Amino acid sequence: MNTLAIDMMGSDLGSKMSVEAVLRFHKEHPEFHLLCFGKAEELNALSGQEGIEVIVTTEVMEMTDGALEALRKKDSSMVKAIEAVRERRASGVVSAGGTGAFLSASSLLLKKAPGVLRPALVASFPNFKTGGHMAILDVGASNENTAEEIAQFAIMGSLYAEIVENVVNPKVSLLANGSEEGKGSPNGKKAYEILKTKKEVNFLGNIEASNVLNGDSDVIVTDGYSGNVLLKATEGAAKTVGKLLKKVFLKNLRSKIAYLFVKGGMRDFKASFDSRKTGGALLLGTNGVVVKAHGNSDSEAFYNALLLAARLVEGEVVTKISKRLQDANNA
Amino acid sequence: MNTLAIDMMGSDLGSKMSVEAVLRFHKEHPEFHLLCFGKAEELNALSGQEGIEVIVTTEVMEMTDGALEALRKKDSSMVKAIEAVRERRASGVVSAGGTGAFLSASSLLLKKAPGVLRPALVASFPNFKTGGHMAILDVGASNENTAEEIAQFAIMGSLYAEIVENVVNPKVSLLANGSEEGKGSPNGKKAYEILKTKKEVNFLGNIEASNVLNGDSDVIVTDGYSGNVLLKATEGAAKTVGKLLKKVFLKNLRSKIAYLFVKGGMRDFKASFDSRKTGGALLLGTNGVVVKAHGNSDSEAFYNALLLAARLVEGEVVTKISKRLQDANNA
Repeated sequence: MNTLAIDMMGSDLGSKMSVEAVLRFHKEHPEFHLLCFGKAEELNALSGQEGIEVIVTTEVMEMTDGALEALRKKDSSMVKAIEAVRERRASGVVSAGGTGAFLSASSLLLKKAPGVLRPALVASFPNFKTGGHMAILDVGASNENTAEEIAQFAIMGSLYAEIVENVVNPKVSLLANGSEEGKGSPNGKKAYEILKTKKEVNFLGNIEASNVLNGDSDVIVTDGYSGNVLLKATEGAAKTVGKLLKKVFLKNLRSKIAYLFVKGGMRDFKASFDSRKTGGALLLGTNGVVVKAHGNSDSEAFYNALLLAARLVEGEVVTKISKRLQDANNA
Repeated sequence: MNTLAIDMMGSDLGSKMSVEAVLRFHKEHPEFHLLCFGKAEELNALSGQEGIEVIVTTEVMEMTDGALEALRKKDSSMVKAIEAVRERRASGVVSAGGTGAFLSASSLLLKKAPGVLRPALVASFPNFKTGGHMAILDVGASNENTAEEIAQFAIMGSLYAEIVENVVNPKVSLLANGSEEGKGSPNGKKAYEILKTKKEVNFLGNIEASNVLNGDSDVIVTDGYSGNVLLKATEGAAKTVGKLLKKVFLKNLRSKIAYLFVKGGMRDFKASFDSRKTGGALLLGTNGVVVKAHGNSDSEAFYNALLLAARLVEGEVVTKISKRLQDANNA
């Protein structure tokens, strides 16, 4: 039976939403065993349920906690949940707690899967050309990466697309400042040279940041620093546009009536940028599945994060990454 | 009398728009002497005008031309216009021709202004918090930069904001993957250390890509690779959102009527992202003012590019950059 370790605490919205999400997930996926870490008094609703085990912890990681606190708060729900994966009592961990603490604690405690040079943080973006989603990595686990690491991200990202998005032979592009060969950061250029020789990767070549949302790619690889800029610039622009649009519609009575006429469409429009649907970011390349739900996750977002973790566990992503990296090295 | 050298050819829309723009600029700013480079038969409308000199050239740089062609096409309107600046017959050059050729020819022919380590390409972004514009540099003149170069960009960008945006004591931020000190790319972190000691720079600290459009900054500095990703990701997201919105409004009769109700607001909304208003990008740090109008500039966009060049020439940006860099070094 597959087991997930869940940090029930530390989200912005409190444990009520994580309890709701766990109950829903448990009902729909009884095949998973769930280890739920958190304060006893907040997890009453979970006790007595078959297949759910409540493990009481005393400390809570704060949103602002970083690597240091991650090491110190040994009895926090977050650290205990990660430890369950390290000790092989669970195959994946989900948390909506602070990114800094969660990523550093996961990296430190779980270590890299065999063959992985560096784990990568993966973000899922809507692709408006294909109507699906694409994976972008690394978006910030590191802030610099060697060419070899970026090339490995292509293999890791392809597995993600296969398992989570059901894509066959995922198309991989490399972020660059121009679409022609020869463009890119110094390490990006070297990664291009490696990628074009890898038969494990369906490599399309370079992609400019302006074409990411409308391109053909299922996977986009880049170093963690540029990936972070790409992710946040896109989020920032979408958010700003949203605010501006709100102003347009709130201008006067006519515009407010207009809003009623396009309300449905605007809802779909907003939903396409909605991070709650994608279940958050995940760390690929560690010894165990690590899913980071957004800090302001509501119950649906947290449920989707659980689903994402479940999918990756069932898809045996960790074993497959090590295996495919090994095949690529021996090729 | 100040003189501008103008490449009349090589834009996507032909020389009709550049002729129109030059005539308008000449009428409104007769204090500028204009050297207009291009094919004789296309520039008839300019002949006989006092203060406008037509210099006939036989070659035209293509949009796809790069550094190599820039060196070979010696009788192109673009190269001849740049040479006029090199030979001190003009203080600035404007072109809507291909970016690759224009930037490399300008860098090669004009060389760096005294004290400048690397020229930077500057993009002007709307700032939705301040209602003004901000300068982002480098957005792609280089694809890697040292910490010292990034720190110089802060001084160059501040002068741009003072001269073009009339900002007093411009606020400068450094792009990073987190707003706290200690975040950033390896060279970005070193640039932070330099910037916080420079009294010539009103340094706010790090800024995340998600806050660029809504931040307090007048100037944002970064290496050319990340700056390019920031610029293009923002453009790409804004464009994608525009397309999606169009779909929302075209959905049915009701939504089409709704569009009529918010048409004015939507026009303002689009205009805030309109690159035609800002006059294009420019290269800072070369021996002479270099303004690159968008390749698909219409007459208004090209006129604004001429205005931007005029402003920078009148503001003596080249001399001031060298002077302030020298002061900063001697401090």
